[in-house]
Amino acid sequence: MPEFLKLTPIKQALEVLLSHVEVNIGSERVKTIDALGRVTAKPVISPIPLPQFPRSTMDGYAVRASDTFGASEGLPAYLHVKGEIHMGTTPGFDIQAGEAGLIHTGGMLPNSCNAVVMLEHTQKVGEDTVEILRPVAVGENTIKVGEDVQEGEEVIQRGERIHPPEMGGLAALGIVELEVVRKPVVGIISTGDEVVPPDHDLLPGQVRDVNSYTLSSLMELSGASPKRYGIIPDQADKLLSISARALNECDMVLIAAGSSASARDITAQVINQLGSPGLLVHGVAIKPGKPTILAVCSHKVVIGLPGNPVSAFVVAGFFAVPVVESLLGLSNVAVYPRIPARLSNNLPSEAGREDWVAGRLYSNQSGYVVDPIFSKSNLIFSLVRANCLIRVPLDANGLSADTIVEVQLLSFSSLPK
Amino acid sequence: MPEFLKLTPIKQALEVLLSHVEVNIGSERVKTIDALGRVTAKPVISPIPLPQFPRSTMDGYAVRASDTFGASEGLPAYLHVKGEIHMGTTPGFDIQAGEAGLIHTGGMLPNSCNAVVMLEHTQKVGEDTVEILRPVAVGENTIKVGEDVQEGEEVIQRGERIHPPEMGGLAALGIVELEVVRKPVVGIISTGDEVVPPDHDLLPGQVRDVNSYTLSSLMELSGASPKRYGIIPDQADKLLSISARALNECDMVLIAAGSSASARDITAQVINQLGSPGLLVHGVAIKPGKPTILAVCSHKVVIGLPGNPVSAFVVAGFFAVPVVESLLGLSNVAVYPRIPARLSNNLPSEAGREDWVAGRLYSNQSGYVVDPIFSKSNLIFSLVRANCLIRVPLDANGLSADTIVEVQLLSFSSLPK
Repeated sequence: MPEFLKLTPIKQALEVLLSHVEVNIGSERVKTIDALGRVTAKPVISPIPLPQFPRSTMDGYAVRASDTFGASEGLPAYLHVKGEIHMGTTPGFDIQAGEAGLIHTGGMLPNSCNAVVMLEHTQKVGEDTVEILRPVAVGENTIKVGEDVQEGEEVIQRGERIHPPEMGGLAALGIVELEVVRKPVVGIISTGDEVVPPDHDLLPGQVRDVNSYTLSSLMELSGASPKRYGIIPDQADKLLSISARALNECDMVLIAAGSSASARDITAQVINQLGSPGLLVHGVAIKPGKPTILAVCSHKVVIGLPGNPVSAFVVAGFFAVPVVESLLGLSNVAVYPRIPARLSNNLPSEAGREDWVAGRLYSNQSGYVVDPIFSKSNLIFSLVRANCLIRVPLDANGLSADTIVEVQLLSFSSLPK
Repeated sequence: MPEFLKLTPIKQALEVLLSHVEVNIGSERVKTIDALGRVTAKPVISPIPLPQFPRSTMDGYAVRASDTFGASEGLPAYLHVKGEIHMGTTPGFDIQAGEAGLIHTGGMLPNSCNAVVMLEHTQKVGEDTVEILRPVAVGENTIKVGEDVQEGEEVIQRGERIHPPEMGGLAALGIVELEVVRKPVVGIISTGDEVVPPDHDLLPGQVRDVNSYTLSSLMELSGASPKRYGIIPDQADKLLSISARALNECDMVLIAAGSSASARDITAQVINQLGSPGLLVHGVAIKPGKPTILAVCSHKVVIGLPGNPVSAFVVAGFFAVPVVESLLGLSNVAVYPRIPARLSNNLPSEAGREDWVAGRLYSNQSGYVVDPIFSKSNLIFSLVRANCLIRVPLDANGLSADTIVEVQLLSFSSLPK
């Protein structure tokens, strides 16, 4: 039985893998309104200043600030109200010394105005006179042209994901179409003589294909387009031919090995025939996930995942998701929202491996607490009962209750920006 | 100028609103493979035990545990190897006292076996004899029928979102179709005489419609189906007719008010004509977002959002997202992943209002740090430059640098499960 001579720590394994990722997979043009979650293929440069005209940030009176100096409740300044500035148009008049214009939040300042007095600090007297009860400084309650964004400014970098704020920013600039990175296509191959499709009845000794479902949806969440190649028996020739096809059609290939050692051997052997440089890492210091194979074949990443569905999912989260993010050219790869939480129970582990244990995170008065979910063999429903994974560091010999641990949310999504 | 007599704290405002939400919006049947992110409309009951047959969790030899008692390297037990148990089928033979069967991880145990000896603790001698070098306990290295899930067990509650682990669990059970809650339809109305569609050129005094883009994408992320009703001028009759139509066609309606006080008055007036009970909350103790209107008209939530795009987005995150989650029947409403982080700069604020300030969260050796992004008037690109919001509590008069603050990720997504 072959054993892994040395296990590579997870961080180092990921670095080796990412150093081989080709980042240019091409781009496509989409409507901004359809670009949610996509990644910019080039920097976005603002074609205009924002705002394009000087605006009021308050309801009140547009004035020349110097006309209000020294004004107080006891000794107000009296200004002639020249008119109302309507929303969405030019003011229609200018303001001379001793004059004011009624203005609304977002309204356009007349040329000679340089401040706005809030309505609360004024008192209308008669038809066309207003008392100013407080002075305003130059620029007060106004936004200058280009104060948010300058014309020609880089407003969104290359490699940024489009979230609601970016959608809004693009709309504000009138950018209704956008060049985004093509979605990486990830081929998913399930293997195992015992594995049948989920819609099949089971004969004794058979199990249904879980990995195609979990891996597809994880890849979808990370911004890739999954392509499923079905279930391949534990035969090297069959696995080689389907893997070669997948490698040709996809940007990355995930092979969920059969659960036995011999099935894993077939996977390693096939991956090494797919192209150079082949295997980079065989065996990672992580539990679950020790028998992981990380490879690059003909410039594309191929990952041999353990057959156990929980192991395959955890490993895909730690390796396949960062590869997708790297293919997308995301500027922040693998920055996960890890939440500190108090461990509710003792958690045994062996030193020399980074353990990731299913847990249930919740909050109470004292903050976040996490219950470990003990399951002797990484059964899929222990993951369904969980909402996070608890990290037990490489050098820890178990953790005691009340230790503050790092918790990784099960979505495996990176920080939103 | 009408002012808000009293501002309702955010938590209390949300409770009032959610207490009026009708939770049954109906369900539909989808394929499990397409159900990512959807919410279960009824509990999922397992039709089978999982696993369906007793399995080995190791590569090794299936045995009767009693045959290994007392075995050691110095004094091994000798067992007759009856054959190999192939993956995906019944063993084809049973094991009597003194016998063993070669078995792979995931293989089916013969009837009379109750344990598996790991390959590493055995030594093959000759063609059909194996030395057992360590004893195993009854049940060791095996999984019993139903150890993951019992037949008839509720495996997924009603009101749970389908994430990759749930997809996998459903596949394991052969459940390839699922009853999920219909996506709530959220009507989005932009108002303002100064607002034009993003693909229009701007005349002086005009701005482009940002809210339709930010609110649509936020609703999409939260699991709703947004329906945009375009831009309505600040005229009560026009706003009333389009709002009434939206209320009829949608499960919730968001109205982004014009930015002026008079435009907000029109919104309030129109919402009160849409149906009873009408306005529940007018004015929330939150910055940005004070002029928020929360209403229920004819059993549907209507939210009047401030016109400023940053304010509208923040308020929609705090109120519209939890309403969507409530309409979806999610068992955990409004549990956001708030991350503790160290504030890098002093942050001024006034007591009596919960402030949410745009920030940029990053991690360094000491953990998470957040830089506040100062912007005098909540400009949209300050949100683009941010990746989170920093919470300044209701009763704080500003926060000092190095304070540990609560940070809300800008995705406004709830905890994944």
